Amino acid sequence: MSLSIAVLGAGRIGKVHAAAIAATPGARLAAVADAMAPAAEALAAAYGCPVRTIAEIAAADDVDAVAICTPTDTHAELIELFARAGKPIFCEKPIDLSLDRVRQCLAVVAETGTPLMVGFNRRFDPHFVAVKRAIDDGRIGAVEQVVITSRDPGLPHLDYLPRSGGLFRDMTIHDFDMARHLLGEEVASVMATASVLVDPRVRELGDVDTASIILTTASGRQAVITNSRRATYGYDQRIEAHGSDGMVSAENQHEANVTIASAAGYTRPPLQNFFMDRYAAAYAAEIASFLSALTNGTPMLTTGHDGYMALALAEAASRSAAEGRRVDMPEILGD
Amino acid sequence: MSLSIAVLGAGRIGKVHAAAIAATPGARLAAVADAMAPAAEALAAAYGCPVRTIAEIAAADDVDAVAICTPTDTHAELIELFARAGKPIFCEKPIDLSLDRVRQCLAVVAETGTPLMVGFNRRFDPHFVAVKRAIDDGRIGAVEQVVITSRDPGLPHLDYLPRSGGLFRDMTIHDFDMARHLLGEEVASVMATASVLVDPRVRELGDVDTASIILTTASGRQAVITNSRRATYGYDQRIEAHGSDGMVSAENQHEANVTIASAAGYTRPPLQNFFMDRYAAAYAAEIASFLSALTNGTPMLTTGHDGYMALALAEAASRSAAEGRRVDMPEILGD
Amino acid sequence: MSLSIAVLGAGRIGKVHAAAIAATPGARLAAVADAMAPAAEALAAAYGCPVRTIAEIAAADDVDAVAICTPTDTHAELIELFARAGKPIFCEKPIDLSLDRVRQCLAVVAETGTPLMVGFNRRFDPHFVAVKRAIDDGRIGAVEQVVITSRDPGLPHLDYLPRSGGLFRDMTIHDFDMARHLLGEEVASVMATASVLVDPRVRELGDVDTASIILTTASGRQAVITNSRRATYGYDQRIEAHGSDGMVSAENQHEANVTIASAAGYTRPPLQNFFMDRYAAAYAAEIASFLSALTNGTPMLTTGHDGYMALALAEAASRSAAEGRRVDMPEILGD
Amino acid sequence: MSLSIAVLGAGRIGKVHAAAIAATPGARLAAVADAMAPAAEALAAAYGCPVRTIAEIAAADDVDAVAICTPTDTHAELIELFARAGKPIFCEKPIDLSLDRVRQCLAVVAETGTPLMVGFNRRFDPHFVAVKRAIDDGRIGAVEQVVITSRDPGLPHLDYLPRSGGLFRDMTIHDFDMARHLLGEEVASVMATASVLVDPRVRELGDVDTASIILTTASGRQAVITNSRRATYGYDQRIEAHGSDGMVSAENQHEANVTIASAAGYTRPPLQNFFMDRYAAAYAAEIASFLSALTNGTPMLTTGHDGYMALALAEAASRSAAEGRRVDMPEILGD
Repeated sequence: MSLSIAVLGAGRIGKVHAAAIAATPGARLAAVADAMAPAAEALAAAYGCPVRTIAEIAAADDVDAVAICTPTDTHAELIELFARAGKPIFCEKPIDLSLDRVRQCLAVVAETGTPLMVGFNRRFDPHFVAVKRAIDDGRIGAVEQVVITSRDPGLPHLDYLPRSGGLFRDMTIHDFDMARHLLGEEVASVMATASVLVDPRVRELGDVDTASIILTTASGRQAVITNSRRATYGYDQRIEAHGSDGMVSAENQHEANVTIASAAGYTRPPLQNFFMDRYAAAYAAEIASFLSALTNGTPMLTTGHDGYMALALAEAASRSAAEGRRVDMPEILGD
Repeated sequence: MSLSIAVLGAGRIGKVHAAAIAATPGARLAAVADAMAPAAEALAAAYGCPVRTIAEIAAADDVDAVAICTPTDTHAELIELFARAGKPIFCEKPIDLSLDRVRQCLAVVAETGTPLMVGFNRRFDPHFVAVKRAIDDGRIGAVEQVVITSRDPGLPHLDYLPRSGGLFRDMTIHDFDMARHLLGEEVASVMATASVLVDPRVRELGDVDTASIILTTASGRQAVITNSRRATYGYDQRIEAHGSDGMVSAENQHEANVTIASAAGYTRPPLQNFFMDRYAAAYAAEIASFLSALTNGTPMLTTGHDGYMALALAEAASRSAAEGRRVDMPEILGD
Repeated sequence: MSLSIAVLGAGRIGKVHAAAIAATPGARLAAVADAMAPAAEALAAAYGCPVRTIAEIAAADDVDAVAICTPTDTHAELIELFARAGKPIFCEKPIDLSLDRVRQCLAVVAETGTPLMVGFNRRFDPHFVAVKRAIDDGRIGAVEQVVITSRDPGLPHLDYLPRSGGLFRDMTIHDFDMARHLLGEEVASVMATASVLVDPRVRELGDVDTASIILTTASGRQAVITNSRRATYGYDQRIEAHGSDGMVSAENQHEANVTIASAAGYTRPPLQNFFMDRYAAAYAAEIASFLSALTNGTPMLTTGHDGYMALALAEAASRSAAEGRRVDMPEILGD
Repeated sequence: MSLSIAVLGAGRIGKVHAAAIAATPGARLAAVADAMAPAAEALAAAYGCPVRTIAEIAAADDVDAVAICTPTDTHAELIELFARAGKPIFCEKPIDLSLDRVRQCLAVVAETGTPLMVGFNRRFDPHFVAVKRAIDDGRIGAVEQVVITSRDPGLPHLDYLPRSGGLFRDMTIHDFDMARHLLGEEVASVMATASVLVDPRVRELGDVDTASIILTTASGRQAVITNSRRATYGYDQRIEAHGSDGMVSAENQHEANVTIASAAGYTRPPLQNFFMDRYAAAYAAEIASFLSALTNGTPMLTTGHDGYMALALAEAASRSAAEGRRVDMPEILGD
């Protein structure tokens, strides 16, 4: 393997992916681009690679693929640009907040045949991988109910919320993807309830911060997702899958695997605080999977279609919560 | 304390309550009644008390209170009979499968002023009591989401199902009561989905075996319940309550608190198999609470109203699942 | 089964055994004796049985067996008395603090052929029973190392210490018995170290409060015991057995099986505080075993020989710690 | 920070340290040396650095420090060489298997004033770091007993055993260092027992495979270590420290943090198999600590003295087990 990858966007997640690329034997960070010059320069310097513009990267012969880590509202356009330039694309989720825009964008990708991977990092978390493997190995029989607990340690900056697409598109989207990943059958209908319990300013911004969602498939399999924008004890990320023969679960990751016992009881540290810690191994494995698929010419494990379907479930949940009714997926997918 | 209690119904749960009464200092098993004479005689012999008819017990001066452990379809009538006889009543849940009949029955109880306790045994489980205490002590702040996992080890006898009132009234009713107990606010609306995944004969009997339910209160608090009539690993009974300041959970009880480690991994025994084991301490504490309330003249901790409200939630869930819509509680409660 | 048992000694442990006897179908509390009349009367009244003297009990035709729960320095004499009276005996550990006295006493028991059970309650704890069963079922292969953690929540009354026989004879004796029970081979040598770390007054009383002990069998199997007279987090009682094919362990019992998560971490309640809580099920099972052996005429599961051997190990540990050397068991046993 | 480090020895642990150096911002792999040319070349190629001889490295101006990862019997000589060359040294444990040789070597180091770090990687494990921090923060009060469980998944190649120095010098040496690290007071005496239970060929090679050790300090603090060369369930590495106010423990690391529940019980995967997995983070942190001490001119956290003292405890344990007696440390240290 010898691959030169350009990273677009030198923010928090761009740095994570740049580090993963640099650490991969045979992969090379080819260039960094960012609208903010100082950010681009700092990241490029750290790994000894040049800063380039988007256009230069698209035209460069020595760039084999790109990782799009820019703000959400640029994703679709950049995907189309690089699809047309024939450069394989890793793009952070979501493709776009509009289902229509995602459809257009994926049509371009399909037309050009350019490989596209959408960054659903959790599928690459080693603990969740072990859950999926247990299911695939038949350890729990036929999947019947999936229960996903997903609670952020705290609200994002309130400035971000209006651009986030709302709780379901911004946060639950990962859980929707995981539910699809584990259910083994597409979701047929969605029921959701959502409230503002964490901070009343969330309501003023037209969003919610606490939600419960039920997904049902045609054969009656169910997934239940509970979300909150606050967990005082850290980043709560758990999965249970119940099947005809048993159950598999992935527990949380604590800051350290220690216990202090005293008259107050037995205390373990809080959970790893947020995604940069909790999913560090997942981010590395995700990029490794992208590089490996490129090298071997195998299909991407998380596709544009996965990005589309997770967004469609977010759309359905949003309507269900707003209108107090079950939303059947054909209404969203237009099938 | 010196109390003489008659047990009506010498089946499985009647035996449990008889034993609890006999083991309580100052309480005495006064009599046993059962339509099946041999069952009544065996239970009476075990504790050295007489067999009597219902009518004899109702008229007896030496019976201070009764425990109704007969089949469900006799509960309401017996409650009315003993309410009119002025004998305090402990009655197994449910009061009846019909909300209207429960209303009538409770009207009689209210009229007579006879104390009535409805047996929601889980409120007395020491682990769930610790959950409730943590909430009441403010350990997790304001409750926001309650997550209840309740999975039976296996289907009941299929003969029983048609008389059970269906999954929601027979099994989930305990979870509805627990949700009300922990939410600290009445439920405003119910969303449910239900399937037949365990055994297709359940469908032929007009019932379901797998369900997910979301309850929402007026202020936006949520409770999520997941149910299945099958858990290969034992009786899965867990509770999580999430609040503004933290989370409290009650974990499962294994057959023994041991672990065997080998090349196959670390294995703990399955869970205690079913309610007779899992809730043994709860049944004892429940009867102790009943006896204590009688002795001290304090209110019962689980009332006829609790029985009515849990059944109303079951009714709402049943409609929601059948009709694929959110059901608002005024529709059921007629408020 | 129909057995009438007299309880000698109406203190804390006498009450526990009296309750267990009264709760057993077919067993009956025949009489209570205690040098302190009020204690005897209170216990007798609670279960509706008479107070009698030791002599009356020994002579009584309607007493089938006795449970000796009196102070340690009376055990050997009472065992001899009731052995000669031909009444099967349950006796709390230890038989005596002097190995020679134990030998004499057991000689009388052997001569009379009277059944004797010595109360090593921990062998009857359901969790430790599960450990033993795992070993007996071959789940861990041949036993190689046994690790026993045994820490009291706090010092006993200092008044008691001089009569206790010292840490090894009073507290570790249970661990010695458990080590013998699990090792499957007699101990050949003992190494021990002991300190006063908890309270300097313990040193003034000629005792120790913190100890570590290694037991080795002829074939090289090892047992390690750690003891302290203080554990701020409750009564710490754990066992691990390592074998050629794996490991089995019994974990501690918390006050309730709940967890509170907050910014301070994940907290479980302290352990059950002391033996009356932790071993409640063991005490009941122990008496059940005694009654069952009497009824069925089967051998006692914990014998006078077990009492002797555990005391011999305590003697060896005591010498090892005092003299800073390994003590080989023939030195103690005089083999 | 800008540091050029040469790695001596391109075997398993040399590769780990080379990777850690290459991944550290500001650090650079300067050269690789190995008696086996192909091994040196492969490692050098992977990180784009030259292969050099020991002599070249000692003389090179562009090498700031060295990491000695060669076989044990070369350590002392290499340390002396580089100490005289004035190049700061990281050396894998042990310095040598002979206490006398270690003394000589450390005398050279002391004379030259060259910084030396000995690789006791476990002190850098994040979970054990959390244990130490809990102690240092006073969370458990004064340390009283330390319990270390250390069991390898399997025997090393039998060819290696004769060169290993024996179980105590090869394997327990890490546990001796950890005991010193946590006890907060030097060990005054050692008692050990050792057996061959895993494989009789170990006996033929003059070694043991199963051991239990008690360390005691002058004030009576105790440490207990249990070792085996076999654990079917993975690499068992646990620590407990008991203090006057409580206990802190570090649990094991499983292959993944998942559980499968079925009729057979609740099963978690085996433990991470051996040190390369279990201590991956520790190795990285260890090298980071070495680089950081060099950069900042601060003392090394694990010194030559630590290497000497751990070896002295191994010597004492060896004698204690062989001669069946307590060994007081002055006998070994010649104080």
